[in-house]
Amino acid sequence: MQNVAYYNGRIAPIEEMTVSMNDRGCYFGDGVYDASMALNHVVMAFDDHINRIYRSAGMIDIEISMAKAEMKGILQDLVNRVDADSAMLYWQVTRGVGMRNHAYEGAGYTPSLWAFVKPAPMKNPYRTYQCVTSEDKRFFFCNIKTIDLLPSVMAAQKAEKAGCYETIFHRGDRVTECAHSNVHILKDGVLQTAPCDELILPGITRAHILAICGKLGIPVREVPFTMDEMMAADEVFLSSSSALTSRVDAIDGKPVGMRDEKTFSAIREAYQQEMKRECGLG
Amino acid sequence: MQNVAYYNGRIAPIEEMTVSMNDRGCYFGDGVYDASMALNHVVMAFDDHINRIYRSAGMIDIEISMAKAEMKGILQDLVNRVDADSAMLYWQVTRGVGMRNHAYEGAGYTPSLWAFVKPAPMKNPYRTYQCVTSEDKRFFFCNIKTIDLLPSVMAAQKAEKAGCYETIFHRGDRVTECAHSNVHILKDGVLQTAPCDELILPGITRAHILAICGKLGIPVREVPFTMDEMMAADEVFLSSSSALTSRVDAIDGKPVGMRDEKTFSAIREAYQQEMKRECGLG
Repeated sequence: MQNVAYYNGRIAPIEEMTVSMNDRGCYFGDGVYDASMALNHVVMAFDDHINRIYRSAGMIDIEISMAKAEMKGILQDLVNRVDADSAMLYWQVTRGVGMRNHAYEGAGYTPSLWAFVKPAPMKNPYRTYQCVTSEDKRFFFCNIKTIDLLPSVMAAQKAEKAGCYETIFHRGDRVTECAHSNVHILKDGVLQTAPCDELILPGITRAHILAICGKLGIPVREVPFTMDEMMAADEVFLSSSSALTSRVDAIDGKPVGMRDEKTFSAIREAYQQEMKRECGLG
Repeated sequence: MQNVAYYNGRIAPIEEMTVSMNDRGCYFGDGVYDASMALNHVVMAFDDHINRIYRSAGMIDIEISMAKAEMKGILQDLVNRVDADSAMLYWQVTRGVGMRNHAYEGAGYTPSLWAFVKPAPMKNPYRTYQCVTSEDKRFFFCNIKTIDLLPSVMAAQKAEKAGCYETIFHRGDRVTECAHSNVHILKDGVLQTAPCDELILPGITRAHILAICGKLGIPVREVPFTMDEMMAADEVFLSSSSALTSRVDAIDGKPVGMRDEKTFSAIREAYQQEMKRECGLG
């Protein structure tokens, strides 16, 4: 198939798929999601993403009755149906279907599983990217991967309008993350990145990067950095499941980073190798 | 009909209505909503609610091409179809339907109109209500009536679990609003309520209450109040479209208010009269 969507047991092309209007995902953003790339029909870091969506769901009191292996099986079946060497797998779990009411207890909701797979390329890890910045006005549940994404939509739109790849958020002076990526800096050979609190998503690619730094002997500081520290860093780069590592050469029109290619490219190459091994491409 | 739903021109019972999976309301909470009570098939403060949803949409860069009169006509038609003297009219506008992508420019989205009408009673204005409190961890777009409502869902659930009517939010010591109501206090004959900034929704019922205070000669202070000030107030009451005025007698299990019935009941009665006049019931 060209692409495929799934909703509570039904399968159809994405453009034709319909869902219940009364699904709480539609009225309240009452759900969580995850996404990864499928290369060669292998979903990257699949177990990490499966574990994260169960964890996200649990944090908002959604109990997914389906076993992890069953969810994984459904999603892998979708991935197998799409004729693409490189595809995006997206899925979300919402609290379920029922008459609109803020509170949910006692209503006996059965969580809804939504998913789609569509052809999509990995972002090029060998080019450089430009970013803009924006005050981070999101809620304090950024550690949960919910579908309440309007502030990220507005930030992504701001980046696109400026001809840039991403918007980097800051709460006052403190850099948090981006509309759909984490952000890291290198300074004097040390990788610095915001700690996992309620202000950032614990990115799976972020975790892999920290593990890679461990293997490569690159020191890591999980300490918030400021806008000034970012602008003065040796390197600034983003991470996400669809881009792994994205090197940044300008923020708000000012040149940044590009001064420690050796360390950055060591991380990038190690990750590219890991990804290729995992997907049987190496 | 028992109830009715509408989605982009289609009409069906709410339970049977389906929507496009690719509607951005489903993935991003990329939309705004409004709601009001229809008594005697008259929608309360209809123009105020219509104006607010256009204003909310504009604040997130959704341009509703449909004229206000047309939207009003569609919604009134739905209200007329439901056999109920007292009903809830809910409607939302999302950015439109298209392949999932954070940024939206250039994709030529046509906003989606969703609505439903179902029988629902007004909340009883003559009983008293109990509340709990919760730290306000929502985003800083609370002045826009978006469908990114997960924090309100969690707060409403907390109230229900405690056997209470509402959760009152506070940012640190400052009281903001509730999961689905505004909150006001009376102290020494003065009505105090949070000002309209990005921390609260500019409630339509709130605005009507301020106008009523003007007519009744009750002074109004639009100045934030603290948790301590709320606990020590002469009266605490909530306002919303489905409840107009809801008097509060306990917060977090501690007795509050109930010490200026004269002023509170003057406001409540004036509003009840206004509502009845508007709906041809007086």
